[in-house]
Amino acid sequence: MQAIRYELIKTCKQTGARLGRVHTPHGSFDTPAFMPVGTQATVKGMSPDELKEIDAQIILSNTYHLYMRPGNELIKEAGGLHRFMNWDRPILTDSGGFQVFSLSDLRNITEEGVTFKSHIDGSRHLFTPELAMKIQNDLGSDIIMCFDECIPYPCEHDYAKRSVERTTRWAERCKKAHMNPEKQALFGIVQGGVYEDLRVLSAKEIVALDFPGYAIGGLSVGEPAQDMYRMLECTVPHLPEDKPRYLMGVGSPDYLIEGAIRGIDMFDCVLPTRIGRNGTVMTSRGRIIIRDAKYARDFGPMDPECDCYACRNFSRAYIRHLFKAGEILGLRLATWHNLKFLLDLMKKVRKAIIDDRLADFRDEFFSVYGYNVK
Amino acid sequence: MQAIRYELIKTCKQTGARLGRVHTPHGSFDTPAFMPVGTQATVKGMSPDELKEIDAQIILSNTYHLYMRPGNELIKEAGGLHRFMNWDRPILTDSGGFQVFSLSDLRNITEEGVTFKSHIDGSRHLFTPELAMKIQNDLGSDIIMCFDECIPYPCEHDYAKRSVERTTRWAERCKKAHMNPEKQALFGIVQGGVYEDLRVLSAKEIVALDFPGYAIGGLSVGEPAQDMYRMLECTVPHLPEDKPRYLMGVGSPDYLIEGAIRGIDMFDCVLPTRIGRNGTVMTSRGRIIIRDAKYARDFGPMDPECDCYACRNFSRAYIRHLFKAGEILGLRLATWHNLKFLLDLMKKVRKAIIDDRLADFRDEFFSVYGYNVK
Repeated sequence: MQAIRYELIKTCKQTGARLGRVHTPHGSFDTPAFMPVGTQATVKGMSPDELKEIDAQIILSNTYHLYMRPGNELIKEAGGLHRFMNWDRPILTDSGGFQVFSLSDLRNITEEGVTFKSHIDGSRHLFTPELAMKIQNDLGSDIIMCFDECIPYPCEHDYAKRSVERTTRWAERCKKAHMNPEKQALFGIVQGGVYEDLRVLSAKEIVALDFPGYAIGGLSVGEPAQDMYRMLECTVPHLPEDKPRYLMGVGSPDYLIEGAIRGIDMFDCVLPTRIGRNGTVMTSRGRIIIRDAKYARDFGPMDPECDCYACRNFSRAYIRHLFKAGEILGLRLATWHNLKFLLDLMKKVRKAIIDDRLADFRDEFFSVYGYNVK
Repeated sequence: MQAIRYELIKTCKQTGARLGRVHTPHGSFDTPAFMPVGTQATVKGMSPDELKEIDAQIILSNTYHLYMRPGNELIKEAGGLHRFMNWDRPILTDSGGFQVFSLSDLRNITEEGVTFKSHIDGSRHLFTPELAMKIQNDLGSDIIMCFDECIPYPCEHDYAKRSVERTTRWAERCKKAHMNPEKQALFGIVQGGVYEDLRVLSAKEIVALDFPGYAIGGLSVGEPAQDMYRMLECTVPHLPEDKPRYLMGVGSPDYLIEGAIRGIDMFDCVLPTRIGRNGTVMTSRGRIIIRDAKYARDFGPMDPECDCYACRNFSRAYIRHLFKAGEILGLRLATWHNLKFLLDLMKKVRKAIIDDRLADFRDEFFSVYGYNVK
């Protein structure tokens, strides 16, 4: 018995985008799905009730951060991550790979794993495929990720190839070390930088290991958007139709829509929460910087087309005041709205798939939002 | 037609504490009442909906801060403070006096008013009784306060006496300058430091001006608790029975209960929100510091006797983690709980008045909470 099941409901005749549903031990979520990021067992600024209010069906949390603080054993003792953070819907955890490579100091990669110094207290740690599985098994998340090597961008073909091969060997070790496959679905991760041949190689090798879902990693790390789309176009055809496909770390409206068009089912990104905390607001007419003086006496909502709690109840002038005064409610409202904006966008994407017009929807959306605005 | 009406419902036979209700243009509130403080047009960390969820019936906001940022004229343009901050229940604003004396630099007091430099941008301002009225009229709060002089503690009798006399003259000017008495009730403020004769003198002079409510100011500024209680005991008998009495800047459980016992109807304080943001939690068994290591694996609620959102849904271990990780949800939950704790305490005080046993309730409460714990 597998932990999750992917149900393909419909394919968009105009684009090939997939409408689906993923069933997990903590309920189902509709795809294409955007997953808000709760790095440290909380989506920054939001309560679980508020996440439900905006219809978040699944969230992501970060293995590296939870391992460091408060520790996976404490969370296991608390009854698992769902109970610890009071979130009873699906959770996906990453493997810690990305953070080990991007946040830690003095990392050293060997076949065994990665040695690094903690970003919190400088303590030394060795992350291995087996440890990534142990931690995620302790957390009890519904979807867990293989420990992979995240190469920098740009990266030589030669190194990228050796890294792909290592990521495959690590994926094998993850599969072997995963102790709870009936309750937690382990996804394989396709790497390969911006090299088509390596993406295809990686996809074939990872798919051969037969995972209940597949992620595409190592994109949105600085490469041009066209390179990302090219990588999706060469990779997705090698992924099975009956498993969900997850594009990691992607959350701007253009990447979400273009990703869905290329057959991606799941996305995550800190973008809406991070820019929200800084007062940048995604609206149906593009981004606005709420601190700007021009909003000082703007008594309309952040986004006139949005029906979120923030837009229903507070003006741009008030939210600007909150940001200028350093008040917590300001970043709460901007975060709330941004997340709702992306979750609503995914609903519109799903609707456009049902109506076989996702390419038309993309063009309409960006004619107002502005295509180059992330 | 007066803006507000005080309804005295019952007096506690054991203590003389008053159960009442104040009717305002934005609805009624039960007394004795604790008013959460929304300094900058927001109760730090809380949304208006959350304040309603914990049954806050009236909040306070600070004239000095709103005058500085975003400005009273902008708030007037927004339709008043209620609409600006989306709070449709009663609001009391202070006069700015306390902040002018405590926050600003280089203040200079003359009969005209107080000249000072802004704590934000160093700009020079002259606060007068007339300006305090103009600002509060623009804000549109239901209860507004006279501009008074807040003397330091300790303070010589001679200076305190001259200050009391000036505060009376300023109160007369406030009454004259107040443009909206049918919609906004102007409270007089009794000063006089810790001198009984001056408190009595001030009470008589201020009451002679006939305000719809009276505040006792200049207490809880460093004097021993017994001095505060003595001042209440000598002042309250000089205040009329048919008007509400407000003890300014007071919010620890002992002051609230002892104040109610001495005939006070209204209180406000930043204490619950300020200490909440620092991770100090008021519980039925006294204060706890949620960051303490001993709570790392404590999977029970902050206060087992509390039914607030935080206590119903999250453990001490989780909230400690949020504070250690610097997550916003941590201070939100601690703030939420602390406010609910004080609002619930006032409900219990009102119940004890109904049952003619407020002194017994005080003894029972502090036998568990610890009397000297603020």
